[in-house]
Amino acid sequence: MSAVEHAVVDQLGTAEARALLMTAEFGRLAFIDGHGPTVEPFAFALEDTAEDTAIVIAVGTGSGARAAVGQTVAFEVDEIDPVRRTGWSVVAVGTLHGAPATVTARPEPWPDPDGELVLLRLPAERLTGRRLRRETRRAGRR
Amino acid sequence: MSAVEHAVVDQLGTAEARALLMTAEFGRLAFIDGHGPTVEPFAFALEDTAEDTAIVIAVGTGSGARAAVGQTVAFEVDEIDPVRRTGWSVVAVGTLHGAPATVTARPEPWPDPDGELVLLRLPAERLTGRRLRRETRRAGRR
Repeated sequence: MSAVEHAVVDQLGTAEARALLMTAEFGRLAFIDGHGPTVEPFAFALEDTAEDTAIVIAVGTGSGARAAVGQTVAFEVDEIDPVRRTGWSVVAVGTLHGAPATVTARPEPWPDPDGELVLLRLPAERLTGRRLRRETRRAGRR
Repeated sequence: MSAVEHAVVDQLGTAEARALLMTAEFGRLAFIDGHGPTVEPFAFALEDTAEDTAIVIAVGTGSGARAAVGQTVAFEVDEIDPVRRTGWSVVAVGTLHGAPATVTARPEPWPDPDGELVLLRLPAERLTGRRLRRETRRAGRR
């Protein structure tokens, strides 16, 4: 008897996607800058209010993400084992805003701590995720 | 005398961005699906031709990336040390196409090997990168 490993992609529910999001410290913001689509890594903090769950990032003067305020953007977090080819990815989608003065989340200003920092807030209007695992299947002639 | 560590972001030239891209096995495709912007991780292979350098991915039936053919998309690769807060990120931007029959790159069909695979090809019309490092600065009163 022989067995082969096979990659499997499971779609995650909102609760599980949210639980995984809470384990991460940084993610990747996908937005449109003056040149087209781009992706930048950011440290983030989560803010839960009565209305929503939001990703909050601290953006320095060197980042094009400041120009993305008002855009519908995606923030992706993942943890992938490049050797085992297992892991997960979660994507939050929403409209990026300047954070109001009442914001309680205090994200680390990484990677761009220079100049005047601006806090940006992305309410997760849509939260999806995928788990990337391997399954052992029996191989053989049918 | 005391010293503090400070994050620094360096913009990379095309040659350096390309050299880092060659060290990676997977990255993240940012595109627009039926719900708005999203990001999916993919294994990839690079193809160099006389005309261009392209990222080639193998996409199964479970991925929304098939619908991104014809879009201008971004493919991001990074290597970030979450403890030291150092690393780099590289972004290739271009128009996503179905790969022609002459494609020589053979990407691993990860994470979605199920069903009929389609090879998609993204010529890097624009290749940028950032190095995220830490610099020690002497701290003290001025």
